[in-house]
Amino acid sequence: MKDNDAPAGVLIAAETARRFAADAFVKAGLPATDAGRVAELMIEADLAGAAAHGIFRLAQYVHRLKLGAINPNPAIKVDKTAAGTAIVDGDNGMGHLVVARAAETAIEQARSAGVAWVGVHNSNHAGAAGTYAALVAEQGMVGLYSAVASANHMGVWGGSEPLLGTNPLAIAIPGGEHPVVLDIATSIVSYGTIKNHRLQGRPLPNDWMVGTRDGAPITDPARSGEGLLLPVGGYKGAGLALMLGLLAGSLNRAPFGRDVVDFNAHPEQVCDTGQFIVALDVARFRPLQEFTAAIDITLDDFRGSSRLPGHDEIRLPGDQRHRRRQAQMRDGLSLSPELADQLDVLAKELGIEMLRARTGA
Amino acid sequence: MKDNDAPAGVLIAAETARRFAADAFVKAGLPATDAGRVAELMIEADLAGAAAHGIFRLAQYVHRLKLGAINPNPAIKVDKTAAGTAIVDGDNGMGHLVVARAAETAIEQARSAGVAWVGVHNSNHAGAAGTYAALVAEQGMVGLYSAVASANHMGVWGGSEPLLGTNPLAIAIPGGEHPVVLDIATSIVSYGTIKNHRLQGRPLPNDWMVGTRDGAPITDPARSGEGLLLPVGGYKGAGLALMLGLLAGSLNRAPFGRDVVDFNAHPEQVCDTGQFIVALDVARFRPLQEFTAAIDITLDDFRGSSRLPGHDEIRLPGDQRHRRRQAQMRDGLSLSPELADQLDVLAKELGIEMLRARTGA
Repeated sequence: MKDNDAPAGVLIAAETARRFAADAFVKAGLPATDAGRVAELMIEADLAGAAAHGIFRLAQYVHRLKLGAINPNPAIKVDKTAAGTAIVDGDNGMGHLVVARAAETAIEQARSAGVAWVGVHNSNHAGAAGTYAALVAEQGMVGLYSAVASANHMGVWGGSEPLLGTNPLAIAIPGGEHPVVLDIATSIVSYGTIKNHRLQGRPLPNDWMVGTRDGAPITDPARSGEGLLLPVGGYKGAGLALMLGLLAGSLNRAPFGRDVVDFNAHPEQVCDTGQFIVALDVARFRPLQEFTAAIDITLDDFRGSSRLPGHDEIRLPGDQRHRRRQAQMRDGLSLSPELADQLDVLAKELGIEMLRARTGA
Repeated sequence: MKDNDAPAGVLIAAETARRFAADAFVKAGLPATDAGRVAELMIEADLAGAAAHGIFRLAQYVHRLKLGAINPNPAIKVDKTAAGTAIVDGDNGMGHLVVARAAETAIEQARSAGVAWVGVHNSNHAGAAGTYAALVAEQGMVGLYSAVASANHMGVWGGSEPLLGTNPLAIAIPGGEHPVVLDIATSIVSYGTIKNHRLQGRPLPNDWMVGTRDGAPITDPARSGEGLLLPVGGYKGAGLALMLGLLAGSLNRAPFGRDVVDFNAHPEQVCDTGQFIVALDVARFRPLQEFTAAIDITLDDFRGSSRLPGHDEIRLPGDQRHRRRQAQMRDGLSLSPELADQLDVLAKELGIEMLRARTGA
């Protein structure tokens, strides 16, 4: 955790956080096994450093479950439409469960077909994209994952309306030391980063947002509600977000564009989120061990190469994730005091033991 | 063609340009059928507006063929390793032929398996990435394509060495009016754009390149040799270029990183280029007509949505490509006078009729 100007965090053992989240989901109506699985996948996001998609989301998910916007007892259906393709109907269940099922299906199909592409509809926000790509990589396969984001904060290129989400792309490749995981939004920064700047009153760099009325950069975080997030690489990132939306949404008969439900603004509404996951079996190209050994040599060469002035390290996909995971498995998750307070309120509301009152497992 | 400050171009019918290129390839040793196919795929890049990958490259390819760096009579081998996977050994043939074979293989396999991922090695520069993704889309399938670029002009994130190419990503999705095609390099601009600015003495915006020695922006185009291209979205684009390199290169036992041959600096060397192409059959998810009708509605909604001040149109992937293609099929390819002169020199060298002497077909 190199973010030295972050507020001092509350350290909670990952297993304690996982049990807390599982208890909360049981109180919100999920069967115990499902609650445990969702909690596990959610805490994976925290461990990987994608905290905005981890336990930070727990209160929101519970709220949506209580409002009946998410089905706590879904009958998830898997329709294998060819040797390498399937459509998963999530029956409006928790996105984590639905996408995990899609990932398992993709892995199973790729074992025989070499590759599989599984589309998902009637799903929900599933947390961190990298989690699901990494699930595939653990099986010696390349994982690709994308989703229609659960709110639109970007415009099409040249447009002033919020028609695109910051649709993420995650790719995970098995490595010898640890998987190589890329998990990026198609915007320059996430909306969560903007919210953090607003909370702290810090100005925004001028390439993060533009105002919908004048098209000029927004640097005052108090004005962020008037703006759109800018995509990476201008029209390139906007184009990539659009293509991913067509593939994760339209191809699966799930909403994309103007039909996307903003799950923050409308917590009571059903989202019908679309996602897709791809599994590619490395062994159909090279023996897995040979491949992972080869890429470790390449990546170690990269890590040890000359640095630009002002950079104290070479940053490769998955390296930070691996370090954060190791550190937090050892030291515990670092939660902000505000988040810990929010989780206490949730615990009281649900009648479960408060997080900070629990001993580390 | 909206680029009003471009020099007045020489207009050549696409079919004339194709025949000229085919004649040149025959003189360089390719069998007539192969020469015609390569010429066709090359001119497709010009038609789509990716001129830096079109007939502009002809002299370079001919030069490499004459030096023996490319095999004019390859025995391309296709090894289907599973229902949905194959490895194509290009036998050092022209990249266009090798990748077109890979695309045909992917399409054929995806017809039965629903999806196919075909890796390529022992290949060469194949021109515009979008060409191959679009070949797949013509068959009612989603096409994805990437390649290890044929020279390294980017660094890993934080690094000062040219270890990454601007590895492209192309995605093509069948549409009702025309396919939706995204074709992007992972750098903010291509090296060709930098070269053009150098030729014209125009300063570079400060987010295009950094100097390897001081890490500071390079704006003087005369100094471009001292710099690295910057990736889209900082670490995100550098990460994406790296992942694509592992998938197009390392997974296929093709060079990636320090082992990549710079085909500009070393025209006599064999490149062993790695590429991959994916085909996904839309019909395994939704009936094709239903899908294309649905996305046409979505994209028309986007096109007609409110614009940001300073933008006179909404720019969606594939729209510009479609307009350019229609205009150039009607009016002819617009070649710069310098390129037309260069092609005249090539014609004399090869003893074929000069391009401007030919009547339009």
